[in-house]
Amino acid sequence: MIEVALFGAGRIGKIHAGNVAAQPGVKLKYVVDVSAPAAAELAQRYAARPVDAEAALKDSAVAAVVIASSTDTHADLITRAAAAGKAIFCEKPVDLALERARACVEAVAKARVLCMIGFQRRFDPTFSALKQRLDAGEIGNPEMLIITSRDPGPPPVGYIKVSGGIFKDMLIHDFDVFRWVLEDEAHSIFATGSCLVDPAIGEAGDVDSTAVSIRTRGGRLCQINTSRRASYGYDQRFEVLGSKGLLQARNHTPTQVVAQSAAGVCEDKPEHFFLERYRSAYASEMSHFFDALTERKPVRTSLEDGVKALELAEAATRSWREGRAVTL
Amino acid sequence: MIEVALFGAGRIGKIHAGNVAAQPGVKLKYVVDVSAPAAAELAQRYAARPVDAEAALKDSAVAAVVIASSTDTHADLITRAAAAGKAIFCEKPVDLALERARACVEAVAKARVLCMIGFQRRFDPTFSALKQRLDAGEIGNPEMLIITSRDPGPPPVGYIKVSGGIFKDMLIHDFDVFRWVLEDEAHSIFATGSCLVDPAIGEAGDVDSTAVSIRTRGGRLCQINTSRRASYGYDQRFEVLGSKGLLQARNHTPTQVVAQSAAGVCEDKPEHFFLERYRSAYASEMSHFFDALTERKPVRTSLEDGVKALELAEAATRSWREGRAVTL
Amino acid sequence: MIEVALFGAGRIGKIHAGNVAAQPGVKLKYVVDVSAPAAAELAQRYAARPVDAEAALKDSAVAAVVIASSTDTHADLITRAAAAGKAIFCEKPVDLALERARACVEAVAKARVLCMIGFQRRFDPTFSALKQRLDAGEIGNPEMLIITSRDPGPPPVGYIKVSGGIFKDMLIHDFDVFRWVLEDEAHSIFATGSCLVDPAIGEAGDVDSTAVSIRTRGGRLCQINTSRRASYGYDQRFEVLGSKGLLQARNHTPTQVVAQSAAGVCEDKPEHFFLERYRSAYASEMSHFFDALTERKPVRTSLEDGVKALELAEAATRSWREGRAVTL
Amino acid sequence: MIEVALFGAGRIGKIHAGNVAAQPGVKLKYVVDVSAPAAAELAQRYAARPVDAEAALKDSAVAAVVIASSTDTHADLITRAAAAGKAIFCEKPVDLALERARACVEAVAKARVLCMIGFQRRFDPTFSALKQRLDAGEIGNPEMLIITSRDPGPPPVGYIKVSGGIFKDMLIHDFDVFRWVLEDEAHSIFATGSCLVDPAIGEAGDVDSTAVSIRTRGGRLCQINTSRRASYGYDQRFEVLGSKGLLQARNHTPTQVVAQSAAGVCEDKPEHFFLERYRSAYASEMSHFFDALTERKPVRTSLEDGVKALELAEAATRSWREGRAVTL
Repeated sequence: MIEVALFGAGRIGKIHAGNVAAQPGVKLKYVVDVSAPAAAELAQRYAARPVDAEAALKDSAVAAVVIASSTDTHADLITRAAAAGKAIFCEKPVDLALERARACVEAVAKARVLCMIGFQRRFDPTFSALKQRLDAGEIGNPEMLIITSRDPGPPPVGYIKVSGGIFKDMLIHDFDVFRWVLEDEAHSIFATGSCLVDPAIGEAGDVDSTAVSIRTRGGRLCQINTSRRASYGYDQRFEVLGSKGLLQARNHTPTQVVAQSAAGVCEDKPEHFFLERYRSAYASEMSHFFDALTERKPVRTSLEDGVKALELAEAATRSWREGRAVTL
Repeated sequence: MIEVALFGAGRIGKIHAGNVAAQPGVKLKYVVDVSAPAAAELAQRYAARPVDAEAALKDSAVAAVVIASSTDTHADLITRAAAAGKAIFCEKPVDLALERARACVEAVAKARVLCMIGFQRRFDPTFSALKQRLDAGEIGNPEMLIITSRDPGPPPVGYIKVSGGIFKDMLIHDFDVFRWVLEDEAHSIFATGSCLVDPAIGEAGDVDSTAVSIRTRGGRLCQINTSRRASYGYDQRFEVLGSKGLLQARNHTPTQVVAQSAAGVCEDKPEHFFLERYRSAYASEMSHFFDALTERKPVRTSLEDGVKALELAEAATRSWREGRAVTL
Repeated sequence: MIEVALFGAGRIGKIHAGNVAAQPGVKLKYVVDVSAPAAAELAQRYAARPVDAEAALKDSAVAAVVIASSTDTHADLITRAAAAGKAIFCEKPVDLALERARACVEAVAKARVLCMIGFQRRFDPTFSALKQRLDAGEIGNPEMLIITSRDPGPPPVGYIKVSGGIFKDMLIHDFDVFRWVLEDEAHSIFATGSCLVDPAIGEAGDVDSTAVSIRTRGGRLCQINTSRRASYGYDQRFEVLGSKGLLQARNHTPTQVVAQSAAGVCEDKPEHFFLERYRSAYASEMSHFFDALTERKPVRTSLEDGVKALELAEAATRSWREGRAVTL
Repeated sequence: MIEVALFGAGRIGKIHAGNVAAQPGVKLKYVVDVSAPAAAELAQRYAARPVDAEAALKDSAVAAVVIASSTDTHADLITRAAAAGKAIFCEKPVDLALERARACVEAVAKARVLCMIGFQRRFDPTFSALKQRLDAGEIGNPEMLIITSRDPGPPPVGYIKVSGGIFKDMLIHDFDVFRWVLEDEAHSIFATGSCLVDPAIGEAGDVDSTAVSIRTRGGRLCQINTSRRASYGYDQRFEVLGSKGLLQARNHTPTQVVAQSAAGVCEDKPEHFFLERYRSAYASEMSHFFDALTERKPVRTSLEDGVKALELAEAATRSWREGRAVTL
């Protein structure tokens, strides 16, 4: 039985708790959260115990930790968990500062522990099926990748202020998808953006709408467009143009009902937000983590992937601020 | 804790076992199967015990039974479980003989136990969302219902021979959908059929392709078309024409990948068969059963629904054999 | 230059006038209509002359006639045009009475003139592409045909009264599609119907909603569902299930705009009615008629096809009236 | 009767000849082409006369010219036609050199003649319906525009060499669509590109795949992705994200046939290329030109629009060459 400590009892922590509990041979032992009631409530649901971080980390029976606490705690927890010899699953981003993220890589390498970053999109059934077909050569050599990534609505401005900016907070996922799908690294990146959704976001020094162009070392092209608001739901699509065809990942919908009336022929709008859209991806990534742990295999979304995505987010931020293309 | 005995450790029994085990406050206690190894294996997976039917039924701690054994055992098990005061979940059909099915109704009524028939389609997310929108008046008064119901491929002829014929075996679900969606009863039914898929099915006295027309007491029209073979997957669609519009239930697909190439613009074919397509419906119906049991509420798919669907299947069989419309 | 006389300057007459005028090497010479102003106006648009039927038919320079006048004039005009040696294009139905339709066949055979019935659906780009792919063996042997045929709204009751009933007026097209697609003849037919759209239609002795089942000599099955009202537009779909797959003909839409909003993901509703949906089919059938005339080839939709469709309509009417299956 | 001289009897000249001839009250009088046989053949089809440019322009009965000859002749013909007082329809681009294009504006202004540039996409039924709905406020304020523009295959390298480069040759249309849809002007543009389709294109100093980002004066964002090769057909889509929703223009297909088989659920690929996809757009733009001429109204796609699109193409070219964003 693998015993697990979970850090963070918020929205995503709850998802992970359920998925950890559903793994055969795995037991959620501790829940750690700055809010004692939140920790207690979540712990109770899975017959776990609410404790503080130190207690959780010093229990040598705990083989793995799942870090779903706020971003500013990630690096510290990764470092301590690595030192304690725990296998680590950590939510994205590793940290808002590249330096600290790189220090995590060193700490993890030194401790020789497994460390996986929660880029759950790679585990989405549609995205991963597309990637398999791409890898199988179905459309020949991939040439262009177009990513559309739009949230249903903006988070509170208070969140925006500590988010690290839209490129680190929101596009970090898209940068990972870019690297994963094309299996190529960025040679140069150009990012532009606007504040079109909420002026308060602009006042906080951020933008809510972005357009990013990447040219890879191999000459491939990638465009990413994002918005903090898509009134029709969570818009998560991408398409890859290859020498022999096109592969597209469409949105998921709650049902397959179609209504035809004088107003037109209407399908469901996309799943509302990430908790709905990526429900099965969250479950799959957790299974993958414990499979890797059990079978001593590498994880699909490594700490290095987390650092690479962060490097792209930093370069994009610089490009946007300076109004020029940035070479990596 | 509600303790449960499961009868039948086959394909559908395994599905139900998993769903029973996943209910909070419910424990799978016994697994009964004519194959001792099958019962043992399934029981072990859920920390249950393999026993015989008598042992399971006489344990007064067992509050509910799930009957997923072969059709010829249903009526007997329903009767005995009712006599033992158990709540009953039973797979369709109740029985191949209307007489015996009606006897079950009496037995259950006398024992005043809860009895639910596994018409899982009513719990499918797409079908149930459509029904809710229909009930909310979105398309006005329903006038016509068109059901397309095609299996990916025919079962072995050995199964066909004991199946009671295509109308009782396959269309029983469609007859229930008809009653559920239109909330109207058949006034007359006309059924025709052919053996187009496999001559052995014809030699067994059955057909593999059918076309059924129903006119309801309220004058509504329903057409059902079925085939034992759809080489593109499990085809499960229906549409309701109303005075103000049309509601359609489309097929579900494993992913939302679209491939565009010289061959065309291609999406996934439908989910392969009922285990895939109705996975969440099977989970929902089991939750509904235990909710009804706990909250002492009626079930959505009653034993009476099972008998009504069987009456339609009998009438359709007679119509097909005699080449004439049958009035109910 | 082929000179043509057009009978009928109504809605469909105007369509044919434009298509006749657009044929290279063809000239619209006369327009005949019971309404002199209507004839004059249409004639003027194409530099033709408004005359009476006799004048048009006795002009030996006229090589072809296009009959788009009211149904009760078809048989008489076919007979007279045949006697005058003209090639004939006639709108469906040939006549409401089978006897008179058969008499036309004799008259045309005796005169050895070309005679084409305006079953334009066979010339629709989507329908004809589907048929070609079916003929090419793409889905193997055709087994079932499902036709959905719904008008956007009912015609005036005055029209219903002289229409010959819904089976001859509306389903005549579907019966022709059935014969064309399956290349098989009906062995038995069962028709039921209801008056659900407008009680006045029922009072006129007709129904507005029908469900027809056909079993062919080859054992194939066909279901047709029709309604006089589809509030979302002209619904013209069919699908053929074959041993190796399914071919579907979807509706056409005016544009390919998709709107995503809180209300859902909405496409255009289907083209409004037959003048829009079959615009290119009407053009193609006229080209086919003059090609056949010029190249002395048989037409794709012969007078015999018109009679066969009428036989099915009569059988369906009888089946509906008598509540029983009718064998042909 | 408006008499017209057509310059250019090539692929697009033939399209325009047919559309000119189909206008009521308009007569194609002259066809001019460097190839005498080509001019003669096309002229004959429409009962026009093949002449040289001078003869066509000095005929004072000619009220309008349609310029569909090679790009390097456009400016000269516009200038001479303007001086001769003719109304002018000219294919895009005005010229490859911005200077010469601007000189045309002066010449046309001085002569006070009507001058329309053939940006046919604005007349496409799908694109224009989308624009109308956008203008009607259906999705609120437009924020982002994503344009996908891919040819089925590259032109001969000989053509590439005289094309002015991909930004002037291919994206000129997309730049016009951008200006038309957003009704905003570019503030800055960043373009990157690669040679992924054919190395010979790179050797000719051009790219075959591009990614362009534009930020408008109003802060709106636009991304354009193009390729000289889409093996699945002519890919012509765009979508506008607004504050209240999304409007998408999908590809057009030849038919609405869907085939379901073991290979998936497949629709037609998009119309092959611009002659097929924009057939009705070409007809509509010509009607618009003659309507504007007759009713003395301004044209929707003016010579100024042609110059503006060229300015964007020049800026994009510079951005790509210099690897930096260009401010306009």
